[in-house]
Amino acid sequence: MHADRPAVTVIGLGSMGSALATVLMERGHPTTVWNRSAHKARSLADRGALLATSPEEAIAASPLTITCVLDHEALHALLDPVAGALAGKVLVNLTSGSPEQAHEAEAWARSHAFDYLDGAIMTTPPGVGSAETMFLYSGSHAAFEAHRPTLASLGDPLHLGTDPGLASLYDAALLGLMWSTMTGWLHGTALVGAEKTRATDFTPVAIRWLTAVTGFLTTYAPQVDAGRYPGDDATVDVQIAAVGHLIHAAAARGIDNALPELLKSAMERARAAGHGSDSYASVIEILRNPADHG
Amino acid sequence: MHADRPAVTVIGLGSMGSALATVLMERGHPTTVWNRSAHKARSLADRGALLATSPEEAIAASPLTITCVLDHEALHALLDPVAGALAGKVLVNLTSGSPEQAHEAEAWARSHAFDYLDGAIMTTPPGVGSAETMFLYSGSHAAFEAHRPTLASLGDPLHLGTDPGLASLYDAALLGLMWSTMTGWLHGTALVGAEKTRATDFTPVAIRWLTAVTGFLTTYAPQVDAGRYPGDDATVDVQIAAVGHLIHAAAARGIDNALPELLKSAMERARAAGHGSDSYASVIEILRNPADHG
Repeated sequence: MHADRPAVTVIGLGSMGSALATVLMERGHPTTVWNRSAHKARSLADRGALLATSPEEAIAASPLTITCVLDHEALHALLDPVAGALAGKVLVNLTSGSPEQAHEAEAWARSHAFDYLDGAIMTTPPGVGSAETMFLYSGSHAAFEAHRPTLASLGDPLHLGTDPGLASLYDAALLGLMWSTMTGWLHGTALVGAEKTRATDFTPVAIRWLTAVTGFLTTYAPQVDAGRYPGDDATVDVQIAAVGHLIHAAAARGIDNALPELLKSAMERARAAGHGSDSYASVIEILRNPADHG
Repeated sequence: MHADRPAVTVIGLGSMGSALATVLMERGHPTTVWNRSAHKARSLADRGALLATSPEEAIAASPLTITCVLDHEALHALLDPVAGALAGKVLVNLTSGSPEQAHEAEAWARSHAFDYLDGAIMTTPPGVGSAETMFLYSGSHAAFEAHRPTLASLGDPLHLGTDPGLASLYDAALLGLMWSTMTGWLHGTALVGAEKTRATDFTPVAIRWLTAVTGFLTTYAPQVDAGRYPGDDATVDVQIAAVGHLIHAAAARGIDNALPELLKSAMERARAAGHGSDSYASVIEILRNPADHG
């Protein structure tokens, strides 16, 4: 251990909490741990963690406590009785929850005179500790800056804003993007697979294509902010014709078309709302105002 | 012009065909052009293209003819009367169409003793000529190898296989991936936008996250090929819980939830089929066999 690294406490030692504590220890932070069932803490103690006998003792050991438990209910059940011990300290809560729960937690922190940062971990446990892994934070900017070096041991820390709900809102938005992308990829993989193309042959092409797609997102983002969607090269009208080809090809091969049918419907609603000559980014108008266009 | 570059003919001078001809000229290929309405050809002739007075004359000018017209109907209307002129030459058809149309075109080529390559252009006209742009080809491998240097002037040429339908099948699959990804991004952008986050602030984080997602695709592709989906770190069960958070957060902000509801339904059908402890890649079983799980 490097005595110059700040001490940190980790409460909640499921697979993610254990990964957090392990990486903090490896980076030389004096790491105190606590978990409701002690056996998970013991295996960390064997590797150098300091084992607290109560949440209160765990909190007292460090200026920064990181929590990663099942949900906000579990968090409050655990910490409400000992919230006074957090006074003057910082709580970084990496428990999954809603923006509303993050707001409630911040109010609770304020009432007990401690600083609160809400966070979301954009990886699975094996990705903890990589500089490429994003850890999203929102809430107290002072707490973020004070503990940035410790947070940087876990991954690349991004502070999204002082609104404590932003980390979980981004988390939800990014997971939605992930499921959409993965399902589109699986649909395409099923389509080419019907003609004996292996997933491992299609996927490198798909990944390379996604790089081009991220270029479209970069082009479209300022269009969304401006509320104007010039369809210079690829209009909604043109894409409606093309999605028909996809649906036909997939139907001919017995593949579920619910996803492309939904995409086509969104494009058709955009066209009906006057966006036929606009870019695909105009579909956001339909998503934002479903009642107007349903 | 570089006299050592092979001559090439481009038939069909819409925005994409014009981009193809322009890039070929810029790279030094003696380029012959023909278009049904002559004025588009004239502007290319002003910049150095050789203007053919008929499709037959255009074909005669080069060993390789590239077509890019509205659809396969237009292609046959144009070339059926002059197909004999293609004998012993190569036709690279970049007209959008279905795998079935590509198969028909190859049979037609065989009956007229010319080689056929079907192709798909994975960019909009401004992306033609970039080494990063993928041009997908399928059909005659000999024709592909013989003309690879010319095709490489247009972008990075990938030969997917001798089945001529593969290029259009990949095209449909990749466009489906694009729309899925763009719609997921727009949904996420709408979600964070409801809390005053600009698209230009969210999008760099989303793009960085997509890099992580491509890592998941690389992990999942061999699972799909093997038909086994070990859910080591992120199971369908866990993701069903998480998609509920997304749906709740979006509903609370008045955002259309058809896409996340569809994703949740796919996950629930995967769980019902016994994949609750498997990875998200198991959803492909549902897409492939909708009748079993609907």
